[in-house]
Amino acid sequence: MPTRRFDLPSDGTPDHWYNLAADLPAPPPPPLNPGTGEPIGPEALAPIFPMALIGQEVSAERLIPIPDPVRDILAMWRPTPLYRAENWERELGTDCKIFYKYEGTSPAGSHKPNTAVAQAYFNKEEGVERIATETGAGQWGSALSFACSQFGMECKVYMVRVSYASKPYRRTLMETWGGACVASPSEDTNAGRAILAVDPSSTGSLGIAISEAVEDAATREDTKYSLGSVLNHVLLHQTVVGQEAKDQMEMADAYPDVVVGCAGGGSNLAGLSFPFVADKLAGREMTVIAAEPAACPTLTRGEYGYDFGDTAMTTPLLPMHSLGHDFIPAPIHSGGLRYHGMAPLVSHLVHTGVVDARAYHQTECFEEAVRFARSEGIVPAPEPTHALRAVVEQVEQARREGVSKTILFNLCGHGYFDMAAYDDYFSGRMTDYELPQEEIDAASEVLADLPRVG
Amino acid sequence: MPTRRFDLPSDGTPDHWYNLAADLPAPPPPPLNPGTGEPIGPEALAPIFPMALIGQEVSAERLIPIPDPVRDILAMWRPTPLYRAENWERELGTDCKIFYKYEGTSPAGSHKPNTAVAQAYFNKEEGVERIATETGAGQWGSALSFACSQFGMECKVYMVRVSYASKPYRRTLMETWGGACVASPSEDTNAGRAILAVDPSSTGSLGIAISEAVEDAATREDTKYSLGSVLNHVLLHQTVVGQEAKDQMEMADAYPDVVVGCAGGGSNLAGLSFPFVADKLAGREMTVIAAEPAACPTLTRGEYGYDFGDTAMTTPLLPMHSLGHDFIPAPIHSGGLRYHGMAPLVSHLVHTGVVDARAYHQTECFEEAVRFARSEGIVPAPEPTHALRAVVEQVEQARREGVSKTILFNLCGHGYFDMAAYDDYFSGRMTDYELPQEEIDAASEVLADLPRVG
Repeated sequence: MPTRRFDLPSDGTPDHWYNLAADLPAPPPPPLNPGTGEPIGPEALAPIFPMALIGQEVSAERLIPIPDPVRDILAMWRPTPLYRAENWERELGTDCKIFYKYEGTSPAGSHKPNTAVAQAYFNKEEGVERIATETGAGQWGSALSFACSQFGMECKVYMVRVSYASKPYRRTLMETWGGACVASPSEDTNAGRAILAVDPSSTGSLGIAISEAVEDAATREDTKYSLGSVLNHVLLHQTVVGQEAKDQMEMADAYPDVVVGCAGGGSNLAGLSFPFVADKLAGREMTVIAAEPAACPTLTRGEYGYDFGDTAMTTPLLPMHSLGHDFIPAPIHSGGLRYHGMAPLVSHLVHTGVVDARAYHQTECFEEAVRFARSEGIVPAPEPTHALRAVVEQVEQARREGVSKTILFNLCGHGYFDMAAYDDYFSGRMTDYELPQEEIDAASEVLADLPRVG
Repeated sequence: MPTRRFDLPSDGTPDHWYNLAADLPAPPPPPLNPGTGEPIGPEALAPIFPMALIGQEVSAERLIPIPDPVRDILAMWRPTPLYRAENWERELGTDCKIFYKYEGTSPAGSHKPNTAVAQAYFNKEEGVERIATETGAGQWGSALSFACSQFGMECKVYMVRVSYASKPYRRTLMETWGGACVASPSEDTNAGRAILAVDPSSTGSLGIAISEAVEDAATREDTKYSLGSVLNHVLLHQTVVGQEAKDQMEMADAYPDVVVGCAGGGSNLAGLSFPFVADKLAGREMTVIAAEPAACPTLTRGEYGYDFGDTAMTTPLLPMHSLGHDFIPAPIHSGGLRYHGMAPLVSHLVHTGVVDARAYHQTECFEEAVRFARSEGIVPAPEPTHALRAVVEQVEQARREGVSKTILFNLCGHGYFDMAAYDDYFSGRMTDYELPQEEIDAASEVLADLPRVG
């Protein structure tokens, strides 16, 4: 039999997370207090995060142990499979070797539970009984609801109202795991009520939902706040993906020339690539590509500077590529990639030339998704279709150059909850959004009023 | 770390199917030609099935080899995991040991691809270029669309019109894999056109869809017909499930006292249980339970006799439990269990006392589904919630008897495409349907006009 699936043994999930910060030649710039312009200390985050996660956020340790109770829950679906995309290669007519890690086997159907379980655990350990968070399309909210159910904790999810209405099944999934999901803006917070007072029919935004969740956590003794991407500790928790992939590539007697991940907040790309980036920083030749939507081109057209993580300007200033904290992305199907900013660690790597970024339109991405589904059998979520498109671009380039490359990408989730997107694609209703230069210029002006990096 | 997941090695899927017919003390009664009342020969099936599958349908061989190209595709997701339900056991407060096989990791999300891949392969081998089938809720249609895409074959799915309208995402899933899906009754067949002529707003039925698919296959040179359950060869293909489970139970140093599966057409129950039933027939003490919906209680309230497989009376007469070929089941969420008949092999085992049958209402089943999701993390499809309810009944009985049992069931699919059912449950809209005695009596009259078994 041909070997196209590489499985680690049941206990093959690593027992530590890999912290890239320990291997960077220079650390990324620090987050700043927006009031003073000074670097913030861990204490500034204590009201909304447990100390263990704050410690991970600023840690310089290379390896951070994964507690057994976390590993035990991850073992429900980890290690995840690594596949050689033999059928897709044949369809593409390439002699490149394409491998993909598949994270869709988790209960919530994506890589998100990797950090949700860890975050729930560290909160529980410090006596937190309830976690508040925001969600856009619902992937993160459902992952955290699942994780909280495993630890007997309450989970409150503020879901952007337009998605709450258009994606009822993600909401039902959260409820099935016991999560309490409300449409944001809601009547449950001052932030929500203030917006509803002005605009009772507000469809909400991720920025508003973050404000509600942070307020919820800051004003309740039993509650902390949780974020599904962007921050260092979230990226850290995702490195189980890349560590497993490294072991599996070794089983396949291969090492990637190119590593590809889609990037919204950055945790998916980081999870797969950081264990490989470690080798690149140590001198190994390698291309690492962040694939993002042309409708929300944070890395390819955004500026690298300090900006707020949320629209309401309640977070510290983060050093990152940004389209401006008041940027409203077009309604593309990849809800997980509709974020104005980017993880500071990923931004730093792009800024220093370690990671390349490419942007794609959703119809060209879905074209690849359908070709992939018909050859490899798995139906991708909208977000990783951007990675598929980036892989094909690499394949085309290799063909032009007359070389064969080994390419690895992360298929970070399945599309079972996103069939409406496929329906739009097949029926010709799918639209591409080209971001006008005026919006980029406007973002630049927003950032000009904030501190500069470096 | 606690061990609650038992993984076979990557090549741990068996290289043969297990044919229970070889181990039965007496063979089940033969299918009959409805015109003559005589047993039908293989040649009667040749217009709609390839010879290899007809051979498997009547085979007396105990082990039938799985061709490498079939194993190669199954290896995309097989072996599937076996779990010890430690968290659910704790929730139930039982000292019974509960194990479950999980078939939701297949591309189509259920056990159905196990036979879809095999059927597509044997058709392809005999030069068939196109397969026609019917589907109710869409699980079978999507599994066959996936399988056909793997062999570069066309797939035409006649989908019951009421489901075509209410479950657009299953239809989109079929299209993503290249399947052509039409609402049945359709304008594409004489059978469909005849019904539309009388009733242009017909919502369709599985019986009508079968008639359309069979006509399609019988009237086109390039096309054969495919069925997703009921027939011997379909059950045969599912025995990879039980064979793997047996190996995995051995890894867990356990053997089941009770084996449970939900039963609609019978292939899921057969797939898990037949390799264990072999041991029961050889003298091992064991309870095997078929869990079915109270709204479609084929085994618990239907009669054992000869009946047609479809409403339009185009199939041979099959010896089976039946509610009558014109029975229209209530619109429960378990679309895969809404069938008037039952696999002849399963019916035979129930008739001879080897398998027990139990019927449950859907609200009590969903109550267990939610408890299961919140402890084990996986959200079950509506069909296997019946198995969950049967397991809990066994747990309660063990408690009354003061014994501990080892229970194994098949979680044959995930519920990602069925969140509307969970939404109905949470919102209190879910209804139970008690089948009135008059309908059972009417079914009995239908069967009275047909040949008797034995």
